[in-house]
Order: sequence, then structure tokens, then C-alpha cells
Amino acid sequence: MEYAVYLETAAVLARQAGKIIKDKFGGQFEKGYKSCPSDLVTEVDRASEALIINILRQKFPGHGIIGEESSGNAAIAQGGYAWCIDPLDGTTNFVYGIPFCSVSIGLIHNGEAVAGVVYDPLRDECFSAALGCGSFLNGGPIRVDATRKKLSEALLVTGYPENKSYSGLLRRVDYHKMAHSCSNLRALGSAALELAYIACGRLTGFWENPLMPWDVAAGSVLVREAGGKVTDIEGGKLRLERYLSITASNGLIHEELLQALL
Amino acid sequence: MEYAVYLETAAVLARQAGKIIKDKFGGQFEKGYKSCPSDLVTEVDRASEALIINILRQKFPGHGIIGEESSGNAAIAQGGYAWCIDPLDGTTNFVYGIPFCSVSIGLIHNGEAVAGVVYDPLRDECFSAALGCGSFLNGGPIRVDATRKKLSEALLVTGYPENKSYSGLLRRVDYHKMAHSCSNLRALGSAALELAYIACGRLTGFWENPLMPWDVAAGSVLVREAGGKVTDIEGGKLRLERYLSITASNGLIHEELLQALL
Repeated sequence: MEYAVYLETAAVLARQAGKIIKDKFGGQFEKGYKSCPSDLVTEVDRASEALIINILRQKFPGHGIIGEESSGNAAIAQGGYAWCIDPLDGTTNFVYGIPFCSVSIGLIHNGEAVAGVVYDPLRDECFSAALGCGSFLNGGPIRVDATRKKLSEALLVTGYPENKSYSGLLRRVDYHKMAHSCSNLRALGSAALELAYIACGRLTGFWENPLMPWDVAAGSVLVREAGGKVTDIEGGKLRLERYLSITASNGLIHEELLQALL
Repeated sequence: MEYAVYLETAAVLARQAGKIIKDKFGGQFEKGYKSCPSDLVTEVDRASEALIINILRQKFPGHGIIGEESSGNAAIAQGGYAWCIDPLDGTTNFVYGIPFCSVSIGLIHNGEAVAGVVYDPLRDECFSAALGCGSFLNGGPIRVDATRKKLSEALLVTGYPENKSYSGLLRRVDYHKMAHSCSNLRALGSAALELAYIACGRLTGFWENPLMPWDVAAGSVLVREAGGKVTDIEGGKLRLERYLSITASNGLIHEELLQALL
């Protein structure tokens, strides 16, 4: 229960950063790219991250910070507390005007994700969870979907890497087979928000590879605390390292999903 | 310009039907299935269609009606006027609580789509177009994305059939290759609304097979009147028949998209 005290700060920051995103959505903003032309970053990502990091540094000077737009990954390995931030998850959607993006703020303690907030600024939905305390949407408790027990009933979601050189880095999945094995398949474009959707039962299962720690740190806590399951794509422990793989679900379909991904 | 007179009725009906959808979104409703357990239909689809059809029959007694939840496809072949309706496109999204669905009302004249309205009730976005009159979003003119001229810059979208026996009916596409060839790939779950997003530049290209006439009749007019291009997956004329294939884009990437789909 000790980690719940951090949620208030994380939620306030996510909402403040979300306001920057909402105000600029559909408007004009400067953009550039990172590892390749598909790997977009905007002034909005940077403004959102600056806001979040400045406050976290003031409030928790002893904590590490790992952000999509900032340097430093060592904090996870070093132990202690580290904040793991994606100031705008779904940058491509944001740039194109597709209304599905989020702010993701996770807290890691001794290498494990222990608390997290994912905020959708366009729908004003704030998902939050801390270890042992359950998952919440705008303050009300949420649970994973317990009605769909078979993969054939599941609505799955996945994503494709922006940088093509990473494609299928850890597992090259057969999308035809996956679409065939489930009720249907989506690719919505924000991993953090997709994990939040698993937590509240709007999606049944998710996989992607590779992703980065800031894409999944907060969302993985949301799913687990909502009664779901999170592993890597092999069914092993989720590792919060660069180029990670993830499989998340309502728990009931997890083994069947892992088998289908082989 | 003669078809614009039908847009007012279509837009009013789409908004009225959209209200039924919005009021029930995230709540309780009866559901069942059609061709297979993944092919969902709800009381909301049926209420939306009843509302639209009743008014169309009163206002245009001489017009045919082709609806997802109603019988009759002969109207297209017979010539004259026929309304082509999807009262809730994205039923699966609606059932699961994913906020991306639409009402699609298209008008066909002598076998050609000539006017259409696609309405997103959750964002109150009404897309409309009539042959020779341009495309509009809530009354303001829209255009396809003219900035992305190469497939590698394009944000593409596709969908997977609910009924697995239809999978890749007309073309079995290599999703890995497609995701590799573009900026990124989405699957959002409402073909009509995805076509509207092509029309206003939020997406660059779209393909799917198979689809039905009511999925694309309205959206194809939106894309063409916004300066884009619509063909079948072979690059030939879009045929408004059962189990059709479609490729739609900003026009600039169309040939390159067709080549990648081979």
C-alpha cells in the first residue's frame, strides 16, 4: 500500500501535461524525428516532459527519471525509486490528428513497476493503480474483462514499430494467424492507453515487440491491479529494459494467447 | 450538384441515429450475433437502422434501401436511387467500449455512390460529401493529406473480417510487408470512419477486403470529393457489391500502395 502516496502527484502531473496535449491537438506545432523519419517527436512531447520532470525533480530529488525524450536508463538497474515517463504516448496519432494518445507516468522501485498513471487528455480519462491497491478510472474501481475466457472471443490489440529496423526484433508474429485466432484485432497506436483499455475490459489481450520501459511501466501496473496478467512474449517475467516484449491480458486467455504467438 | 439536396436529410438522420449510439455507449444493451460469434449485432444497431429507414421510406418512397441489418441488395443493380446504410459501423468497438464507431448513410444513383454522410457520435463529427460539391466536416471544407507523397511517409489503416471464413477472400495481404513499407499501420475498427479520416487527412491510405457496400458507399464519396482516390484492391473501379475490396488514399501514394498490396 506504500506506493499509493505517489499516485496523487503522478495524476496531477499527467492531467497538467495532458492539458498541453489537448490544447495543441488538431492545431499547429513544430515536429521533427528521432531514430528515423517515422519516429516522430514534437514540441508538445518536449513541453509535456519538461513539465513532468521539473516537478518530479523538485518533489522527489532522490528519485531517478527515465523518459522517452530524455536520457538515462541506468536508474532502473540502480535500484531505489525511478519514474518512467512517456510524456506523449501515441505521438504519430497526435501528429496526424487521430484522437488516441496518452500521458504515461510509472514508478519503479528496485526494478519493479509499482505504481502508474495513464491519462487520456482527449477523453479526460485518468487510469491509476498502485501495488496492492487496485486499479481505478477517474477514481472508480476497474477490472479486466472476466466474460471472455477463450482467445476466439477476445478483442486483441497490437502495434508496429516506428523504426522498421526493429520490426519483429524479439518475435516475428504471424498477423494473419493472430487475426484468425481471436474475435478481432486492433492497432490503435498508443501502447500505454491500450494497456489501460485491457485494465478496464475494453480490450482482452495485447502483445507487442519491441517496446520501451516508458511505454509499459504504468500500464503493466494497471493491468495487474485490475486482475489481469502481464508477461513477456515468452510467458516469462516482464523485463523493464530497452527493446522489451510484452503480452498482457485479462489472465483467462493468457496461456492461449502465448501459444498463438509462438 | 443535384445530389447535395439529399445531404441535409442524411445528416439529420445520422445525427439522430448517433444520439441513440452515444446514449448507450459504455452502458447496457442486448446483443447477439449474425454470421458467426465475432459478427456482433446489438439492439442499438437495430434501433439506429429502424429510425433511419422509417424516415427515408417516408421522404423518398421511390428509393431503394440497402442496410447492414436489413435485407435487399437488388436495389443497387436495379438502377435508380438507393440508400446504403450502416446504422452502426464498428459494432465490435461499440460492444467493447472502444470510442471509435460511426453511422454511415450513402446514396447510390444508377449503381454509383453519389452522396454520403459519416457521423461519429462520440466526437460529434459529421463528415458529408456530394458528387461535384466537395467534402465537409461539420460544415467546413476538408481535403486529403497533400503533404505525404510517398508510401514510406503514409499512415495506413486496414481491418480484419469478423467472419474468419472471409479472411483474405479477395487478396491475402502480407501485413509485415505493409507495416514495413509505410510510416505506420493502424486497425481502428470502423471502415466508414476510417474513410472519413482519409478524407480529412488524418490517415493517408486504407485497404480492406472483403467489405460490404454499406461500409464504403458514403466514405468513398467523402474521399473522392476531398481530392483522394478510391479503387478496388486491383486498382480497378470500386464495385458496390457484396464482398468487395477497396483501396483508398490521398491519391499521391495510390499507385505505390497498390503495388505494395500485390
